[in-house]
Amino acid sequence: MFTVIGERINTTLKKVKAAVADRDADYIADDVKQQEAAGATYIDVNAGARIGCEEEDMRWLLGVVQGATSLPLCLDSPDPAILEMAYGLVDKKPMINSISLETDRFDPMMDFFKGKACRVVALCMDDSGMPKSVAEVFDRARRLVEALSSIGVEREDIFIDPLIQPLSVDTGNGVMAMEAVERIMMELPGVHTTGGLSNISFGLPQRRMVNRNFLAMMMARGFDSAIMDPLDSELMAVLTTGVALKGGDKFCMNYLKGVRAGRIKA
Amino acid sequence: MFTVIGERINTTLKKVKAAVADRDADYIADDVKQQEAAGATYIDVNAGARIGCEEEDMRWLLGVVQGATSLPLCLDSPDPAILEMAYGLVDKKPMINSISLETDRFDPMMDFFKGKACRVVALCMDDSGMPKSVAEVFDRARRLVEALSSIGVEREDIFIDPLIQPLSVDTGNGVMAMEAVERIMMELPGVHTTGGLSNISFGLPQRRMVNRNFLAMMMARGFDSAIMDPLDSELMAVLTTGVALKGGDKFCMNYLKGVRAGRIKA
Repeated sequence: MFTVIGERINTTLKKVKAAVADRDADYIADDVKQQEAAGATYIDVNAGARIGCEEEDMRWLLGVVQGATSLPLCLDSPDPAILEMAYGLVDKKPMINSISLETDRFDPMMDFFKGKACRVVALCMDDSGMPKSVAEVFDRARRLVEALSSIGVEREDIFIDPLIQPLSVDTGNGVMAMEAVERIMMELPGVHTTGGLSNISFGLPQRRMVNRNFLAMMMARGFDSAIMDPLDSELMAVLTTGVALKGGDKFCMNYLKGVRAGRIKA
Repeated sequence: MFTVIGERINTTLKKVKAAVADRDADYIADDVKQQEAAGATYIDVNAGARIGCEEEDMRWLLGVVQGATSLPLCLDSPDPAILEMAYGLVDKKPMINSISLETDRFDPMMDFFKGKACRVVALCMDDSGMPKSVAEVFDRARRLVEALSSIGVEREDIFIDPLIQPLSVDTGNGVMAMEAVERIMMELPGVHTTGGLSNISFGLPQRRMVNRNFLAMMMARGFDSAIMDPLDSELMAVLTTGVALKGGDKFCMNYLKGVRAGRIKA
């Protein structure tokens, strides 16, 4: 099972921002339906880009998105008050994006999670910023899992984000992410790993080529979720093929279905 | 460094068989030049398909191929006498394809390798046939490395072939190959791993899609050579991207060069 967190309902995207400003429910609903049809597992909803409007924008978006899909949502905000409001409006167990070890964020988010039924994206970020080594990623992952476990969050509900950093910044960043994922999946059994896949290709040309191959390589090391664009059909084809190659597609049925539907083309 | 063993000069391929029968040197030379231009590291030469003609076909092919390229060759035959003749005709240190643990093959091949300067493809095959588990692959790899080391073959010159088996036969075959490669690369440091990449997709539609993603996934686990078709430009693009993602492409120069040349397209 691979968990696809559809990243498209995010007001930092120009068209989404405009649709939200115009209260264009059709645009949002249509996008969400397309993400569901393409194979999204969760629909991420981020209403943070219009300054001063996050609460009302999030409220409006949740209504529209839940009217368009029966998929669970990934509530994406740094603000526990917004998340609290949003949590009260969802009708399925949501994923919350995100907690980190940054001191101004950690305690309020821990308070938020206490006693709630939700899954959580846990970022391997602390006050010193982005991690610089596999050991650093793993140490942060371990601390996050310990903290979340202490308030009753099951490992099955924890999605560790190792923080994928651009290859163009350091050619070791791909290997760092792969090794961190492998170590997290081996040494913290039961948790999931996820992350913003396309960060890897920032600053490079033909980014989707890099994203696709990085997805396959990360899957080979245990990555079992990504925050990604389900409407990138070639990326989704890599995902279906990758699941089959990992032995997760009985009789390759899903792969064959994808080929017959024309979604998987060599 | 990834070692691409170009698999196209093989008389089991219809057009090659016809070209060899017709002594069509231009056809062979042109194919070899294309493989070199596309990034092959070795040119595999297999003259086994025309019964009773292997020796003279191999001799003719070696002349034509070496006239067309300065790349080293991979001499591909089960017959030590053919290999002995071929070894005497090559002007660069060749790779020999292959030795295995099958009793009728092992001793004659060991005799062949004694005192020769060459690299070797070592198949994880024994008298009981194809391996059925990672443990079996690894055990055979270990025995092959021990035997070859005992006659002075350096690990750097050994290319272990874990024997990639079709996903369509068993959906666990992808994972078995990936785990075997990882274990071989970790526990027998210094050796290489290689194999006939496209075996994975036998019996499935849109095979090149499966091959491409399998290559990326195998690279993520340490696979550092493949017996493959360098003229599959999309497969070669995956290879270039995969090497960059593994941190093997300084400043992503080779990736960027591929993009500029139009060889890498998202």
